[in-house]
Amino acid sequence: MAISEIDKLIQILARLPGLGPRSARRAALYLIKRKENILHPLIEALRMVDTAIRPCGNCGNLDVADPCAICTNEKRDRTKICVVADVSDLWALERTGAWRGLYHVLGGLLSALDGIGPEHLLISPLVRRVEEGGVTEIVLALGATVEGQTTAHFLADRLLPFGIQISRLAHGVPVGGELDYLDDGTLIQALEARRSL
Amino acid sequence: MAISEIDKLIQILARLPGLGPRSARRAALYLIKRKENILHPLIEALRMVDTAIRPCGNCGNLDVADPCAICTNEKRDRTKICVVADVSDLWALERTGAWRGLYHVLGGLLSALDGIGPEHLLISPLVRRVEEGGVTEIVLALGATVEGQTTAHFLADRLLPFGIQISRLAHGVPVGGELDYLDDGTLIQALEARRSL
Repeated sequence: MAISEIDKLIQILARLPGLGPRSARRAALYLIKRKENILHPLIEALRMVDTAIRPCGNCGNLDVADPCAICTNEKRDRTKICVVADVSDLWALERTGAWRGLYHVLGGLLSALDGIGPEHLLISPLVRRVEEGGVTEIVLALGATVEGQTTAHFLADRLLPFGIQISRLAHGVPVGGELDYLDDGTLIQALEARRSL
Repeated sequence: MAISEIDKLIQILARLPGLGPRSARRAALYLIKRKENILHPLIEALRMVDTAIRPCGNCGNLDVADPCAICTNEKRDRTKICVVADVSDLWALERTGAWRGLYHVLGGLLSALDGIGPEHLLISPLVRRVEEGGVTEIVLALGATVEGQTTAHFLADRLLPFGIQISRLAHGVPVGGELDYLDDGTLIQALEARRSL
């Protein structure tokens, strides 16, 4: 077929998260019609990312430098490591500006269903970082899902022998959230962890 | 900042239709993590589309050939032209397989609000195709919006002197649609255009 080049582009775009076949068609057409303004810049940006971005050998963050800019930042608190499943979680925490320690990206969560065991995640490198000393607290920022909780328990067990502080993110009512729409589990945890004013 | 290459990619992805800042971040991360499987194929597909795809000088369709595969297809009925606003509309009609004539892509719709006049659309080339002779019917497949109707009326006026048949798509109940959810305008038109069984 004559339009197979466009079809091929649509097929690849449709594999991106958030784009279905319909929006992939719209995106492809949008790109073809705006070669100078968006198609060429996109090709260039993809090439740059392809050649320049790599995972940090220390924490698993994605950056142009290895070790990454967070690991080499003298202003960060090197005694605290926040453990996250994915780089997107690291980005979310960095956007808040509330965490001044280091990170460790596991690259996923334990999942018996998906066949993901400890050997598929960057758990050993995390244990090694703790073994090397200097770390006093590990914050497990792993999401309140079955996989997140399983992974948190597994890590807590592995890190117990080192006698460091291990914490997790607080559960509770999301800021701006209405009680009415919250699930029972969150409400119960929010009630149990209530704070005096 | 160190992650500016990723930020730049996210910014460009977020400009695509159907992708917001959040899904653009997810898409960028997805691409970076799958360099071999999706980032490289995407760069290659974008390059191919960039160099190979161009608008057909006759009908405005996008193709590797100019005139396009539809315009040069001997099996298509050359006496009938279906006028559409956009290449995506042409694709939608081609997917049905129900149209065996030629097409003409206007490249948009008349819109006083957006300052789009007849000179911004491929209207003169359409009139020229009719002037050259051989065309007996023009189907205006332009959508039942204010802009679509305005454009349809304008084209009908311009094509009137040629004495050819000018038609538009039927209005009515969408297949699988429930009457309850239809607007009054559609219901009235569906009733007026009722067919005997």
